[in-house]
This record gives sequence, C-alpha cells and structure tokens, in this order.
Amino acid sequence: MNNFVYCNPTRIFFGRGETDRVGKECKNFGQRVLLVYGGGSIKQSGLYERVIHRLSEENLEIFELSGIQPNPRLDKVREGVNICRKHGVDIILAVGGGSVIDSAKIIAAGACYSEDPWDFFTGKTEIGKKLPLGTILTLAATGSEMNRNAVITNEVTKEKVAVRNPVLFPNFSILDPENTFTTPREHTVNGIVDMFAHVLEQYFHPTPETPLQDRLAEGIMKTIIEYAPQVLAHPHDYHARATIMWCGTLALNHLIEAGVEGDWATHRMELELSGMYDIPHGAGLAILFPQWMEYVFDVIPHKFAQFAERVWDIPSQGKDLNTLGHEGILRTKEWFREIGAPTSLTEVGIGEEHFQLLAERATRKGPLGTVKKLYPQDIVTIYRRSL
Amino acid sequence: MNNFVYCNPTRIFFGRGETDRVGKECKNFGQRVLLVYGGGSIKQSGLYERVIHRLSEENLEIFELSGIQPNPRLDKVREGVNICRKHGVDIILAVGGGSVIDSAKIIAAGACYSEDPWDFFTGKTEIGKKLPLGTILTLAATGSEMNRNAVITNEVTKEKVAVRNPVLFPNFSILDPENTFTTPREHTVNGIVDMFAHVLEQYFHPTPETPLQDRLAEGIMKTIIEYAPQVLAHPHDYHARATIMWCGTLALNHLIEAGVEGDWATHRMELELSGMYDIPHGAGLAILFPQWMEYVFDVIPHKFAQFAERVWDIPSQGKDLNTLGHEGILRTKEWFREIGAPTSLTEVGIGEEHFQLLAERATRKGPLGTVKKLYPQDIVTIYRRSL
Repeated sequence: MNNFVYCNPTRIFFGRGETDRVGKECKNFGQRVLLVYGGGSIKQSGLYERVIHRLSEENLEIFELSGIQPNPRLDKVREGVNICRKHGVDIILAVGGGSVIDSAKIIAAGACYSEDPWDFFTGKTEIGKKLPLGTILTLAATGSEMNRNAVITNEVTKEKVAVRNPVLFPNFSILDPENTFTTPREHTVNGIVDMFAHVLEQYFHPTPETPLQDRLAEGIMKTIIEYAPQVLAHPHDYHARATIMWCGTLALNHLIEAGVEGDWATHRMELELSGMYDIPHGAGLAILFPQWMEYVFDVIPHKFAQFAERVWDIPSQGKDLNTLGHEGILRTKEWFREIGAPTSLTEVGIGEEHFQLLAERATRKGPLGTVKKLYPQDIVTIYRRSL
Repeated sequence: MNNFVYCNPTRIFFGRGETDRVGKECKNFGQRVLLVYGGGSIKQSGLYERVIHRLSEENLEIFELSGIQPNPRLDKVREGVNICRKHGVDIILAVGGGSVIDSAKIIAAGACYSEDPWDFFTGKTEIGKKLPLGTILTLAATGSEMNRNAVITNEVTKEKVAVRNPVLFPNFSILDPENTFTTPREHTVNGIVDMFAHVLEQYFHPTPETPLQDRLAEGIMKTIIEYAPQVLAHPHDYHARATIMWCGTLALNHLIEAGVEGDWATHRMELELSGMYDIPHGAGLAILFPQWMEYVFDVIPHKFAQFAERVWDIPSQGKDLNTLGHEGILRTKEWFREIGAPTSLTEVGIGEEHFQLLAERATRKGPLGTVKKLYPQDIVTIYRRSL
C-alpha cells in the first residue's frame, strides 16, 4: 500500500424525497443561484419544475444555463462563467449527469478566475477556488457528484481533457434514486459501464499489498454485476436504482484508490476517441477495456486471475493463472455485450484513419498507464485490436 | 436501503513517515497545542520525542495532559478542559488509541462549553462546537480517528456512555502504521476484535436491500481475518499493520452504515460490562458477540447464512440456512479464540452478581438493538449464556 492523503468533504443527501431539500441547502450559500442543466429530460420528468419550486419557495433568485451536452463543451462553460460574473451568482446548482456536473465545476472555478477557464486544462494556471456548488444527480455514472474531477471538451481543437483539484468537490450532492427512473436505457447502460470501468482502472495497478482496496473494489464490481440486469429490466425498481447509484459514487470518490496507483490508460485512450468522434464515454470504455486487459495481461497475471475468481466466480480448480485470468477478461467482454454496450469500434462507426493522431495526442504529456507504460505504438495496437 | 446523510471531513495522512507532518499541520490551527496521551508507551517507542521535536520546530507552545487510561475517565477530561481554558489552547493533539482520542474529542468540545462536559452525555446539552483536533493513531481499533463518536467513563457512577456528534470529527488524523509496530500483543488482539465487532454491528441489521453495504462490510471482515494472524506473528510487518490500520478506520467511519440501521446492542451491553469491571472493550465484545448472534438468529437466518458463506467461506452445498448460519457463528467464536481473545465472562473473572443492574442500566433509554429489541430480561439471558 502506498502513502496517501484522503479527504472528501462533499455532503451526500441520499434517498427518495431528498430532492426537496434543494432550496434550503442552496440558501445556506447565498441568494443568487445559477441552475445548470442539459436538454429537456429534466423538464419532461418534472424534476425541473420541482427544483424551481423549491428554490422559489426560499425566495432565491434563479439564473439558468441549459443545453449542456454529453462530452460537455468549453463554450457552454464560458457562457456560464459570464452569467456568474455579470449577475454575481452565489451558488451553482447542477441538475443532471456527469457532463452537467463537470461543466458546473469548471464554471464555479472559472467564475473565481479572471481569464479563460481553458487555462485550467492547458496547465497555464491551477484552480485556486470556486463558487459553492450543489448537485442533483440524474444519471449514475461518473462519480463527479462526490469527486474532484472534471472533463471538458474543447470543441475547436477537439481535445477532451480532464482536470483534478481538491477545490472541485461539490459542497453537497443530492442522490435521489427516483430521479434516475426515467433515464433512457442507453444512458443507463453507458453509466454502468463507466462506473465499472472506474473500478477497473483502480483495481488493476502495480502497487503491492493492497488487500483491503482489492476487496472493496471487488465488492463494488460484484454489486454492479448483480444489479445491472435488474435496473435494465425494471427501471422503476427503487432499490436497484439506489444500489447502482451508490455504486457509481463509491466507484470514483477516491476511496478505493487511496493507497494504490491506478492505471487510467484506458480512460485516456477513450477521452481521445470520444473527443474526436463524440461517442458516449461508456461505449468507448466497453470497447477498449478488454483489449487493454489483454495487452497488459503478462505484467500482472495473478491480478487477472484474482479478478476472474473473485469478481466473476469462475472456478479456479485445475487451471493455471493464465487460463483463469483470460477467462475473466472474456467474461467481462461478454457481460458488456449482454447489458447492451458495444464491444468494437466498427459497431460505433469508427475506423482506423486517426489512430496515429489520437495515440500521439493521448501521450502528449508522456506515456499512459501504471501497469505498463503505453507509448503511441502500443495505443495504436490497442485501438486496432478494438476494431 | 434507507435514506442517509453522509459527510466525513476528516483529513487522513496515511503511511510511513507521515508522523513528521504533525508540526506543520498543527500550526495551521494556531500556536498553543495541548498534547494528550496515555501512559509511557509513546515515550518508550520514541514517538513522544519525535512529536515534541516536530512541534518545537514550528515554535509551537506545548501543554501536556498524560495518563489517559483505557476506558477513559471523566476526571481526565475535566483536567484537560481546565488546561484549555487556563492557557487559551488553540488545538488539541491526541497521540494514542481510541481512549486518548475520545478523551481529546470531549476536551475539545468541553473547552467551548461553559459548564461540565458530562452534560454532553446526560443529554443536558448538545455539543455545539469544539477546538480544532488532530490525532496520531497508535492503536488500530476504535475508528475514532475518522468518526464522530466518543465514549467516556464516569468513574463515580461507573457509567460508560457514548456520544455521537458531527462536530467531533477530528480535523486531521495521521495514520502511520509504524507507530503500531510496538503495540503489545494483547492490545493488538483487542483492537482487531473491536474493529471486527464494529463491522458486525453494521452488517447484521433489519434494513432490506443493502447489497453494496453488505459487500463492503464483508470485504473489510475478510481482510481482517486474513491479516490478523500476520500482524500477530510479525508485529513489524509494515503492510500487515497498514492493512489492519486502514480496516479499523473504515470499519467505523460511517461509510458502511450509510443506508443501514446498525444494531449496536452488543456494544451497549459491553459498555456496561467494561464500565463496571474495567475489562478491555475488545475482550467484552469477543465474549458477548457470539451469544448475541445466537440469541437473534431466528430474525435474520438468511443474513447469518450469507455471513457464513461469504465471510468464512463455509461451503453451503447441501445445507439449510440454519445449519450454515450457525456454523458461521461457531467459526466466529473459534476465530476469536484462535487470535487470543477471551470467549467467556468466567475467563475474565466476571460473575453473574450484577447482571440485572447492568441490564437495567443498558436499557435506561429504552430497549437495545434493531435486529431484535432487547429488554433487560433478554440482556440478562445473553450475559448468563456468556459466562
């Protein structure tokens, strides 16, 4: 186990009905609220009206920024920052999934910075502080509701870049599973793949002696595997939605990575893909992950064997480590297919024409990964095997 | 899963060498430090000198309160509060195990309250605020380093009472596994039992549909079971000490209880015992827990069967739930014995003379437990079966 610093100050309000707290919680931080959301889904579901009602009840002044898209774009962030500056916004309220929350995080930080928020992603400056931020989660996926990460796409350069900073923890997040009842099936699937992939990134690592971290990660993965079919078959099953929602949060709230050096190469390879092609992040992860696993297998065969045995309950008797480990990878790929995720780039219409460019972009700050360092040539190979 | 609010603001510095941060971290909170510790063990191990050195390096003014005992006493808390008031202490630094940290929590709260700190335990007042508090943990056991709980014994009335308040989270805690290398074997054992019992209290509960919480709890228990023998055989094994230390923290930092209604009857029954007889808390828990399990078995036989299968790897084939579940309880008791914990009251010199009084004290605020409500008569029965 490595040394680590761990602190997660986000306050979670979890459960049915917690949405109605939103007015009072926002009011703790001031009078002027910027409501950030995506398309029409929260209007169709009635959530928009409910939130407006609760904010109005507290006599809060509401500004709005709508139209945040998946793979959220820098121009919307800049638009949000301008609203904050112009109206002296006190608190930002993100109502949506990871894209909305990530945008809101950078708006909140950008509002406290005098220049362009893209500077946070180029390394020109560090995030120093942010406006208070509350969230109401509507899609179980990214964990952004309880972590310090944000990913934004620069639509001009077609770069999708992540930033991590302890300032970015939301002040509070409302996790009301009923707000995910109407999530479309495809988004639910992509969210499940995304959270599962987050655990994989932190489970396959080169750090020795991390038995507790392993067990926690395995517990989250087993729970996702068990409840994914239930959520897909019964989208209004409260307990299944609640379970998947809490899995998504714990999959990436820095707990299971405390003391381990996660890999994250697959995420970096995927960010290039979805930055360029605007495919769903979860889809890209389902396609790339099994190929990454095969590519790095020989570095940590024992871990893949453990994964097969403990997460997939594949009997180990009479098998060598390699056979067992490869069975685990195959099972993972089958499972992605079973729940309806794509498993090849061809399926989502991506060919090999930009592989070299994407691989070079992915490695512009150096090779990827901790299990095995991946250079452009390795990445092109993984992309190619994913066709 | 129940609704819940979760927020844990304690900053953890985990790992070898982190002890040396203590001066700088304390300085963030002010100039005058009250160092709270137990007997001579931190002087023998060199930790005392190291801490003093780091505090002095930052030119901090140091006051001391030593002599905190296991089952920490109210008179020492009052003494600490007086030092804080007299010298205008800015931050309290607890160096020790749960008893030292719990005492420091109540001193920190008492210093911000004009009357007697016992009022926090009688219900006369609520804790409102506290002085900043840092800890350096020397015994993996209670989880107090990252939770909002404290337990104090009133040596006059022989009552041992717990209080929970979000104000009581330490501001930071340094978890340096090397500081537990010299922990005496008996304390290590009691700490292991204590953390295991914490997980049990939150694992056996009446809340339906808590699959993720179950998996996390099982993961912690399996890790404790796997590493306890290693820590006992090799007290200087860094990774084993580190693993057990992080298990102890996660066993009671409110994470695995988020969404479940823990039972805690066994802890309440034990507090009465150790309040009266001054036995180690872990010893009392090892004695009482298997008897509690048998007593409430019929309410949740499926959970005991799951426990047997998942935590103890007892094969379920061809067995009914009851057989499987009882085997799990038997295995728990055997394991307590294997690691060197007592498993009967007789072993620790306690007879039945005060059972009725203790049972009445334990229930003075109502019956205990959530799995099955325990009234004085039930408690006397459990005590008696523990002889």
